[in-house]
This record gives sequence, C-alpha cells and structure tokens, in this order.
Amino acid sequence: MVLKSFVEVHPDSHFPIENLPYGVFKPLQGGEPRPGVAIGDYVLDLSALSSAGLFDGPILSKSDCFLQPSLNKLLGMGRPAWKEARATLQKLLSFDNPTLRDNSSLRAKSLLPMDKVQMLLPTVIGDYTDFFSSLHHAKNCGTIFRGPENPIPPNWFHLPIAYHGRASSIVISGTDIIRPRGQGHPMGNSPPYFGPSQKLDFELEMAAVVGPGNELGKPIDVNEAADHIFGLVLMNDWSARDIQAWEYVPLGPFLGKSFGTTISPWIVTLDALEPFVCDAPKQEPHPLPYLVEKISKNYDISLEVQIKPAGLEHSSVLTRSNFNHLYWTVTQQLAHHTINGCNLRPGDIFGSGTISGPEPESLGCLLELTWNGQKPLVLDGVTRKFLEDGDEVIITGCCKGNGYNVGFGTCSGKILPATPL
Amino acid sequence: MVLKSFVEVHPDSHFPIENLPYGVFKPLQGGEPRPGVAIGDYVLDLSALSSAGLFDGPILSKSDCFLQPSLNKLLGMGRPAWKEARATLQKLLSFDNPTLRDNSSLRAKSLLPMDKVQMLLPTVIGDYTDFFSSLHHAKNCGTIFRGPENPIPPNWFHLPIAYHGRASSIVISGTDIIRPRGQGHPMGNSPPYFGPSQKLDFELEMAAVVGPGNELGKPIDVNEAADHIFGLVLMNDWSARDIQAWEYVPLGPFLGKSFGTTISPWIVTLDALEPFVCDAPKQEPHPLPYLVEKISKNYDISLEVQIKPAGLEHSSVLTRSNFNHLYWTVTQQLAHHTINGCNLRPGDIFGSGTISGPEPESLGCLLELTWNGQKPLVLDGVTRKFLEDGDEVIITGCCKGNGYNVGFGTCSGKILPATPL
Ligand SMILES: [Ca+2]
Ligand SMILES: [Ca+2]
Ligand SMILES: [Mg+2]
Ligand SMILES: [Mg+2]
Ligand code: NI
Repeated sequence: MVLKSFVEVHPDSHFPIENLPYGVFKPLQGGEPRPGVAIGDYVLDLSALSSAGLFDGPILSKSDCFLQPSLNKLLGMGRPAWKEARATLQKLLSFDNPTLRDNSSLRAKSLLPMDKVQMLLPTVIGDYTDFFSSLHHAKNCGTIFRGPENPIPPNWFHLPIAYHGRASSIVISGTDIIRPRGQGHPMGNSPPYFGPSQKLDFELEMAAVVGPGNELGKPIDVNEAADHIFGLVLMNDWSARDIQAWEYVPLGPFLGKSFGTTISPWIVTLDALEPFVCDAPKQEPHPLPYLVEKISKNYDISLEVQIKPAGLEHSSVLTRSNFNHLYWTVTQQLAHHTINGCNLRPGDIFGSGTISGPEPESLGCLLELTWNGQKPLVLDGVTRKFLEDGDEVIITGCCKGNGYNVGFGTCSGKILPATPL
Repeated sequence: MVLKSFVEVHPDSHFPIENLPYGVFKPLQGGEPRPGVAIGDYVLDLSALSSAGLFDGPILSKSDCFLQPSLNKLLGMGRPAWKEARATLQKLLSFDNPTLRDNSSLRAKSLLPMDKVQMLLPTVIGDYTDFFSSLHHAKNCGTIFRGPENPIPPNWFHLPIAYHGRASSIVISGTDIIRPRGQGHPMGNSPPYFGPSQKLDFELEMAAVVGPGNELGKPIDVNEAADHIFGLVLMNDWSARDIQAWEYVPLGPFLGKSFGTTISPWIVTLDALEPFVCDAPKQEPHPLPYLVEKISKNYDISLEVQIKPAGLEHSSVLTRSNFNHLYWTVTQQLAHHTINGCNLRPGDIFGSGTISGPEPESLGCLLELTWNGQKPLVLDGVTRKFLEDGDEVIITGCCKGNGYNVGFGTCSGKILPATPL
C-alpha cells in the first residue's frame, strides 16, 4: 500500500506519513505542553484530535493519554495502544479521508507550522542509562585511555556495558551547553588542573525510549523486550574528556558527562523503523542464554554530525556513521538492564553508546577523530582538536526508504563559554 | 532551653521534640500519602495541622506544601521555611502550649500511633548519586578488587569520587530485597558465571536529601551548600559483589547495585543535627579552592548494623561505625557535584559511600568484614561470608545528646531467594 497524505510533504522531508514520530510541544503563541506528531513541516496536535473525539479505537477512545504534558502515559499503555494510534493517525492524515482534510476549523486548530511551536522534552525521564555498545568506540577509547594492550575489557563481549547518567541535565535539541568547569588529570607531579574543560567533546549516540516498565524484581525476557521500547531519538552525550579521564577510576564517568545531554524532540517509533531492520552482527563468543534472541534486529539508520563554528555561514561534516554498527541490540541492552530485577519506568531512556564505525571517517566523537587531540581535524575553514566556544554541533539521522525517508530531524546544541564562578 | 513535649517520649526514643524528623506516611485504615513528623511513638500528621490553620507563620500560612504526597515542595522552599516549620512544631508540641494539647479531636486526628501507619518514600527522587568518601572503605575495596599496590586511586584525595545510581529501585525500609541474578567474574578460562548472586552484601551508608536545587550551569558554592541540604537518612546500598566485580571496568557499578537501595523513612534535618556537629578530618593534600570551606562540619552519628537470620529470634551486631569517619563532608560533596553546572532538584539524594571506620569491627560491609569471603564472620549462632536468603539486615543510627537522642530509627530489609526466570 502506498501511503499519501493530504498534507504536502517534500520528498526529502524526514516526516512523511510513513514516519509520524511523537513529541511534546508548546505553541509559541501560548498554551500548555501537549503531545504531537510531525507530518511534513507541521506538527499535528494530538490533544486537539483527542478533544474532537477522533481517537475512536477501543483503547484510545477511553484514554486521556493525549491530554497530558508528557508522553509517559501513552508509553505506559504499550504496543496495542501505539498500533491503534498509528492506524488512526495514518487514516486521518491520508489523502482520501475527508474527516480532517475537509474540516478547516479543526485543521487550523490541530495542524501547526513547526516554526510556530517550541519543542520540549517528550517524556519525564525517571532514569537515564548510557550503554557502550560500539566495538570500534570501545577499542579506540580503551587504546587512548588505557593503552594498546587489551584495549577492550574482557567483559565487553559477554555483556552490554553501561552506567547510569544524570537524568536532570538532559535537555532538548537547541538548548545551549555551557562549557563545564572541573578538575583535569595532573601532568607528572603537578596538582590537578582546575578550570573550564579544555577537552570538550560530543558523542554521536541514539537512545531508546522505554514504554511499559517492569516491576522491581521481575526481569524482562529478551524476546519480549521490543514490546517495552517505544522508539528511538538522536542523542549527543556531551563529554569533557579531561574531567572524565581524571575522575572515572574506579566508579565510572560522573561530572565529565553530567553537565548536559541533548536529545532530539521526535521519538521515531519501532513500528516506523520496521522497514529498516537489518541483521545484527554475529556475536562471538556466543552470549549467555538470557541474551540470545530468536530474531536479532539492528536498524539501518544513517547518521551524520556537522559542526558550525561561530561566525561561519556554513557547517562542515565531522563524521558519518550508522546505527547498524552497534554490536549489542537495543533489546539485548534492555534485557541485560533488567536481568538483576532493576525496574524500568515509562519514559526512561537508554543511550546506545557512541556509534563509531570501522572507518576513520565514521568515528563518533572528537576523542577518536583527533586521537585525543593529537591529530587535529582540518575542515573547510576550521581546525579542531576539541570543541571551542560558539561551536554548534548538529546530529542528523535518517532511514532511506523507497521514495521516502523515515528521519529523526536534528539534535543540536551550541557551546557557550564557561560562566564566571 | 529545655524542651519537653506533652506527648510522652521515652528517654531512649529516637524521636523527642529536639528531633522532629520528616517523612511521608499513609494511615493503615486508608487515606492518601501525606507528610508527617515523628514524635515519640507517634506520627504527627502535618496535613491535618495545615488544614487546621496551625502553620500560621509568614511563609507556611500561604503554602500547601503539607498537602502534598511527597516532601519535594517543602524541600524546594529552603531553610527559612524549614526553620519556621520547626519553630511552629516545637511550639505546638510543647508541654505548656494548649493549642494541640487540649484539643482532643484535633489530637485524635493528627497524632497517629506509628504502628497504625505505613511509611513511604519521603520524596520523589529525580536522581540518586552515591559517593565513596570513607578512606578506610576506599583502601579496603581497592586492595580487594585491585591488589595491595596503590589501592587508593590517585584522584581520591583531590575530589569526592561518585557515580550515578538507579533512582527507580530505591525502596523504603522494610521492603524485601530479591536476590539478583547476573553474570559473575569467570574463573581462569571458564565462561562467566550466571545465576543468583553468590556474594550479596549490604553497605552501611547515610544519604543527604537535597533541598532547593540549582539551575543547570550554575554551580553551588561550597559555603552555601548547607542551605541546599534538608537532612540525612540511613541508607543500605545493597551490592552483589560478584556482579559488580565483573561489570565495573571501565564505566563503574551498574547491575551490581541497581536491584535495590533501601533508605530509612525519617529525614533528620541538619537543624536537628546541629548539636552533634564535630570537626571534619584534616585534608592533606589541601583541596582545590572550590572545595575549601570556611567551616567544615562532620556529624557525630553512631551507626550500627545487625543481622537477623531467618528462624532466629535474636539479631547479632555485624558492625559499629560513625558518620564522622567520612573524609569528604556532605557540603563538599554537593559543591563538587555541581561544579560542572550539573543541576540538582529538590528531593534528590546522594549517598555518603560505605562508612567504614579504622577498626576491624567498624567496617561497613561484608566485603570488608570477611575480606571478600575469605574470613567468614562467626557470630552468635551464625557464620556468614555473604548474605543468605532470609537474612534481615537492620541499620540504626543515633546521636546521643545530653539526656536525649536525635535518632534515625532503622533502615531494614530482608533477602528473598532469587525468583525463577
Ligand atoms: Ca556515551
Ligand atoms: Ca555504595
Ligand atoms: Mg551527557
Ligand atoms: Mg543500591
Ligand atoms: Ni538517575
């Protein structure tokens, strides 16, 4: 079936009727935060559709999930509700359905141009976890931080390594990032450095958004894990490498990460990503049974990072990678996360870890691209070891379909100078 | 001034009128969660007092902070509100004030026997951090996990090391803890162990509860940090040592901790703890300026851990320690936490790290007490390397005043067997 909407959608748009990603927005002219989906250059206000009684399926007609300031309630309802919402929205937006198409007052109320809204965090994030699932990234970081002998720790091939990050400092795309202050590794016998980070970096990541959670003490089976994942967003796990290198032994990254993490506003659902499923990598050694999946899915999502220095008109490509470089799948990550009984809650997110590919041009952060500042990147008009004040970093992600895209839009942030103490 | 309440309080009670710790409870006979303070064997219902108009000070008379299901709103209001609440409550509870004493219907409504209520988590915890601030614990763990050469990492004396823990699995005292499953360190060339943890441990900790937070990007000065801390609770950071040892390189503890963390229900305020202030340890090397305090305070809080195995009538003392063993103060921890701009929110908590003293009988976990299971503890009728199913671990903490206590009550949890997969 070819889908077509009465809303005009450019062929290169990230948001055709095949996508319909979910976000939370506030009209610039005023009003409360509410859920929406992206369609072309518009945001479709789901609270307006819900109030008009257009979610008429058996699950959603009885729910106020679209009258909430976050997506948490919808996410907790699970895949049957999500499928019903997707079917209803594709019907309402389709070329040959008159309900919304021919109702000009409802259209005016519910279809808002994207430049007339402010996007907000889509969920209340109870906990944020960050994995470390790209083999190339693990190998490069291990070599840089710990040396070329055994750069990959022995546990890496047995379990998807992760740590808990800071939920409070997750911000929406477009939010400025203030350069953090902190302690850096001492040189020789000198005391530790203190001041604004001199090795500020981005990390190209994606994050999974949790749907229904689990009770404390009840692990989620890896073969049911997909039903607990609503979708994916782009993520930039900003990292201060000097702070991180000094603090991370033995309890892991802390202040080197917790000053800010940016996510993109649109959650692309696993249902919309299904046409872009590809094989997951062969895992050797064979994982333990609780990590073995009947069907092991990766997603073919092209990723690109650009940098736009202050004062320059154009941006330059820093790297191109793909979500399919990940060794551990999102469903394995989720099953591992809960195997000890840890409870997930709707709206929680977990990052993939930096997504580096095998080629030098596909590395996911400046630490790797410049080999910890030793080999500066020379781009069109700029040279960079690490990020400088005024630099804007823009991540995009997109799946290329047959005549259409399923895209993630952008995830961007600009570096502001450290504030005086 | 000698304080005395019309509510009878035993001399050995943890909860005299000098204490007045805050919690959230639900009457067993029904009703919504609401704030209360402990007085003797009673809980004073603050929602009832508030509804009766008895918080008549300039700040609280205008606030609905006691009509909330958590303490977050009160915590966000800051020390002036807390001081006013404490003064109002000490007046209302005092022996010579007739307002509550002689109003039998209000007394019946607002003073509930502790055994007629269920205690709940006192705050909505946005983020949970765990520090590592006992020198003895750091030294012992370093020796056990990494060997006797340089057991203490070089950063330890320069900054209060910490990691982010799991907020979702923090539970209130009395909640059973299910033994976690997970991967344990392989022996030699064998594959990793998988199954119920064989090295389940407790960690004797206390945690600070955050009052007013800070904006992202705006650090809190160490000399103002005390105004951002409402009080302290007891904490048991349950730890699966086999899972932790295998997973923690390079990103820190994850599933070895995230299956459950228990806190005590009563937050003892810094104001109530003020008479028990003692000197903080001399710090050498001298910390960086952002960690230097005009007045550096520790608290003299006696701590004790008991174990009560299934089927035994009596419990045995596992260890005795004191909060004053900590090297880094809670105010230094908070200043460090925010120096990179990381934002704290009211109700967040941060743990002290395991509080081990210098003596063999003052170690704060079984890992240290039994030297990773190599020297089993022989107690009255039980021998333990690590925790067994049915074991109940009970932490108590108390400050001994002149004729009165300022106590924390207990923080307890019982180990249940791993559930079948
Ligand atoms: Ca990362
Ligand atoms: Ca701990
Ligand atoms: Mg981050
Ligand atoms: Mg824990
Ligand atoms: Ni968290």
